[in-house]
Amino acid sequence: MNETTPYAVLGKIDDPTALRALPHAELRRLAQEMRRNLIETMARNGGHFAASLGTVELTIALHRTFDTPRDRLIWDIGHQTHPHKMLTGRRTGLEMQRRVHGLAPFLSRAESEYDAFGAGHAGTSLSAAAGMAAAARLKQEHRRVVAVIGDGGLTTGMAFEALNHIGASAEDLLVIVNDNGMSISENVGALRGRANLGDFFNALGFTYDGPIDGHDLDTLLDTLERLRDTEGPRVLHVVTVKGKGYAPAELDPIAYHGVTRFDPVTGTFATPGGTAVPTYSRIFGDWLCAAAARDPRIVAITPAMREGSGLVEFAKRFPDRFFDVGIAEQHAVTLAAGMACEGLRPVVAIYSTFLQRGYDQLIHDLAIQNLPVLFAIDRAGLVGPDGATHHGAFDLAFLRCVPNLVVMTPSDSHECQRMLDLALECDGPAAVRYPRGSASLALAAAEPLSAGNSRIIRESRTRRGPRVALLAFGELLHAALQIAEILDATVVDMRYVKPLDDHRIAQLAGHHELLITIEDGVLAGGAGSAVGESLSAQGLCVPLLELGLPDRFVQHGSRDELLAQCGLDPAGLLRSVQKYLRMLEKESEPIHQAPSAAPKIGEK
Amino acid sequence: MNETTPYAVLGKIDDPTALRALPHAELRRLAQEMRRNLIETMARNGGHFAASLGTVELTIALHRTFDTPRDRLIWDIGHQTHPHKMLTGRRTGLEMQRRVHGLAPFLSRAESEYDAFGAGHAGTSLSAAAGMAAAARLKQEHRRVVAVIGDGGLTTGMAFEALNHIGASAEDLLVIVNDNGMSISENVGALRGRANLGDFFNALGFTYDGPIDGHDLDTLLDTLERLRDTEGPRVLHVVTVKGKGYAPAELDPIAYHGVTRFDPVTGTFATPGGTAVPTYSRIFGDWLCAAAARDPRIVAITPAMREGSGLVEFAKRFPDRFFDVGIAEQHAVTLAAGMACEGLRPVVAIYSTFLQRGYDQLIHDLAIQNLPVLFAIDRAGLVGPDGATHHGAFDLAFLRCVPNLVVMTPSDSHECQRMLDLALECDGPAAVRYPRGSASLALAAAEPLSAGNSRIIRESRTRRGPRVALLAFGELLHAALQIAEILDATVVDMRYVKPLDDHRIAQLAGHHELLITIEDGVLAGGAGSAVGESLSAQGLCVPLLELGLPDRFVQHGSRDELLAQCGLDPAGLLRSVQKYLRMLEKESEPIHQAPSAAPKIGEK
Repeated sequence: MNETTPYAVLGKIDDPTALRALPHAELRRLAQEMRRNLIETMARNGGHFAASLGTVELTIALHRTFDTPRDRLIWDIGHQTHPHKMLTGRRTGLEMQRRVHGLAPFLSRAESEYDAFGAGHAGTSLSAAAGMAAAARLKQEHRRVVAVIGDGGLTTGMAFEALNHIGASAEDLLVIVNDNGMSISENVGALRGRANLGDFFNALGFTYDGPIDGHDLDTLLDTLERLRDTEGPRVLHVVTVKGKGYAPAELDPIAYHGVTRFDPVTGTFATPGGTAVPTYSRIFGDWLCAAAARDPRIVAITPAMREGSGLVEFAKRFPDRFFDVGIAEQHAVTLAAGMACEGLRPVVAIYSTFLQRGYDQLIHDLAIQNLPVLFAIDRAGLVGPDGATHHGAFDLAFLRCVPNLVVMTPSDSHECQRMLDLALECDGPAAVRYPRGSASLALAAAEPLSAGNSRIIRESRTRRGPRVALLAFGELLHAALQIAEILDATVVDMRYVKPLDDHRIAQLAGHHELLITIEDGVLAGGAGSAVGESLSAQGLCVPLLELGLPDRFVQHGSRDELLAQCGLDPAGLLRSVQKYLRMLEKESEPIHQAPSAAPKIGEK
Repeated sequence: MNETTPYAVLGKIDDPTALRALPHAELRRLAQEMRRNLIETMARNGGHFAASLGTVELTIALHRTFDTPRDRLIWDIGHQTHPHKMLTGRRTGLEMQRRVHGLAPFLSRAESEYDAFGAGHAGTSLSAAAGMAAAARLKQEHRRVVAVIGDGGLTTGMAFEALNHIGASAEDLLVIVNDNGMSISENVGALRGRANLGDFFNALGFTYDGPIDGHDLDTLLDTLERLRDTEGPRVLHVVTVKGKGYAPAELDPIAYHGVTRFDPVTGTFATPGGTAVPTYSRIFGDWLCAAAARDPRIVAITPAMREGSGLVEFAKRFPDRFFDVGIAEQHAVTLAAGMACEGLRPVVAIYSTFLQRGYDQLIHDLAIQNLPVLFAIDRAGLVGPDGATHHGAFDLAFLRCVPNLVVMTPSDSHECQRMLDLALECDGPAAVRYPRGSASLALAAAEPLSAGNSRIIRESRTRRGPRVALLAFGELLHAALQIAEILDATVVDMRYVKPLDDHRIAQLAGHHELLITIEDGVLAGGAGSAVGESLSAQGLCVPLLELGLPDRFVQHGSRDELLAQCGLDPAGLLRSVQKYLRMLEKESEPIHQAPSAAPKIGEK
């Protein structure tokens, strides 16, 4: 495993055409080199790892058997696609994957013609493949369509919806089930365990082949060649080992699902420098264990995100009260609703981006019935390296329009715990929404924390120039505090997006010449927009600058880089404020007076 | 079928306890009387009809066998629950169902302790039942849980997610599949047709019984009694006839799914008075046929709403290009994405409330990849008698935060056609959003219609008092025009919610003392909120009154009644405007000057 060993075979493969020209005898060597490259690259740079170790042979066999990119190859989610990127001209790019301007974390149509469909969330491949197969039929283009979905991806409702449609419409389509028994953690659900998968697919109108060994290249090639030229909806069940070929990852595929830098020989992860500050996920997990120990009504539900959501300890201590439902966000929400009807206090731990999957259930089953379910929304705002498909950019906008829902944005570790407590006391649904990564340490609050109220952290003392108030939602409070020193601004930790502290907003409007909202979420319909609505509803007219995520999809990079890219670091915030102040100054000159002039309502 | 014939048996049944005490010999008579009552009531009042005719015997058998409400009986959707309402003390209330203060259109926990879980959307019953069964287990309350789901409901992804979880967790739960072969129209999907349902459920870890005749009371009672006291996840497959016992409905269950008043003897529907004004659904359907005749790339996708979405004609004329995917909104959206990748121009016809189910797919599969798919969003805003679960109240808020998406709100029939044309020309996803019911006739526009622009319909000429501009989104433009005469207000048809006509907003702000937005959607994050954001972003400060739906769930009634209830009829709008003007007047008095005073930014 020497980094300088050349890749004698892999080095020749710039695209699948070269792969298809390779002598059969060299394929095994190619697989070895691909695995070695993957281990070396991930050890240096980190990234999603173990799933890709399991798909080396499958990827070779698929690109060798099918005429990609003319034939459409659609991968579900994308955790397993490093081998695919390697064979489609992006091997060296993997060094920079997930970084700014580097390769995409998952699949991207913009990145390669071999990425037939972008991915990131689970279960989308079958629907996309069905659409492509139908299009090929209607356009009489005789291309083949292959979708690769994991046994984890098969637990999503949308995968079932697609199967049910494909089976009935008899679309010409090959589904590969990449069965490694794992979601990020162990896969769950009745379909797990292989024995009944054939019956399941037959019942849905598919012909079923397998299971076959997904690391046996010859069997893969033979089987795919045979299935390539049959017709109708058909499934090939391929059994793979997550982490295959790298012993530490085979032994602990959960730890090696996504990795930071590690020693390729020992498998030991590099220890992060500095003191360990707890992440929000950890704060939530610890809080939940403590709360559950006090209150037997508490149960926890996760859609296949035990590790990421900080639930490992809870699952160990309270196995009966822990529900991993698979990648099934819709079911997770309505399961919670059913439990809440019976007096339990369900806590749904979910990533912001995946809550988009349970949106209707949140409205229809929870909010309309006003059932007390707590949402612990992790990975809110910019998530960093997982990129556009995973940012939790929209939650404040899509949540705050829902009646009966309480939405809170903690700004530090203590606030997070306090808000989780407050959420448990709600009579209806409540959400506490926090970002990926470490929580700031608690500020000494100038005001006591109470339900529904904001708190003033700093008061402007200026007597010269415009008085400015910064209204921060969540962690960006700390960036606001930094620029407040320069602007001598009032700083308010707004805490609640819903209900909003209208009274405070009116007070601030009365004593400041400019209000500025700051949030780690899209501006359109977000928390700043709510402040604008509050001002309007109260008949108050004061300049309002809303700062947050832009109206475009932000790509990948570190969270700090992306915050800076969006102007949400202290320097960016300051620039925006100063630019706005200059604009207001200009507009208050006589020639532009009309728009910003005082309302003339009273002057009949 | 005489309305005055007394209900000798049904009249005695005030609740299921009375049903359980009834001599077995009277059950058949009870079923007859229930059916007669249902026909008479629906003939007089209209409502969801044919599905309930099919569940008379099943409902009797369930309430007689199980100890409701202690045992939990959970109905999916609720179209089939008139017999359930009859037997649980709500028979006479059915006369006023769906009207203001009348019985709920579907199920409601607030209405009856026998409604174990509220319903309206499809596929929720299994998740709710799983939650209740888990709670019963954890709390050691030995109650039984029964869910009744149709074969249509089984096509939803969330039903599969629940089955997969229940089968694995071995929750103690009985699922009744009420198989009538129908969604609102013919059910679709590979599971349709009964033969393979046993294999499907077995593969998911359920014991399977059936199929049995759902109109044979004795078989139902015997089977349910046997299954009541077995354990684990089990399913009973019951075959019923939609429309059973009423010949016209049996012959045409689609026409009698939901009915307006009809002659109970002949089955003839009352013809509505006045001239027939086309509905938006009809305008869309006609437009689609014409567009598809011109452009072979156009295909249409519906999640089981062929009739409601105006697609009957398209399905007939272009059967190869028509895709009814079942109650599968998630799949519908990503299927469209796959087709768009291949150069087709998919049109997804969907109700606003059901698009909530495809929200993640819209963001993740369409908007991120910027694929050209047209959403024809029907039933936007208040829908009327279908009530809280069906209002399309949230779409403007949850759509306008999504980058790359274009969102249009037509105000009349001509605008609707024009916008559908414009949407087809978009390079990315676009939505045209319109309400239930008839479209207003086209106004003579003062300005030509062009992409991205609003249009001025009326200009204020006032020189006395405050100059007011009404910015209307969608059909409520016509209410705005009515009050504009009284206020001598400028009226603008905003047309686009996204992108917003910022230039127009700045112009209006420059020449008016008050801007008023009007929309048929929630205020929080809605179109008015977008106007506020636009003003803020442009550094403009002018009083803004946002009028729209309140932050609560609106119940059922006629659309006009509900609009009035929400203050969105002309009288209500005028009241709100006048009240706001008075508030501004008060605040401009010296003592309250600060908040609404001119920005002092320039005065250093």
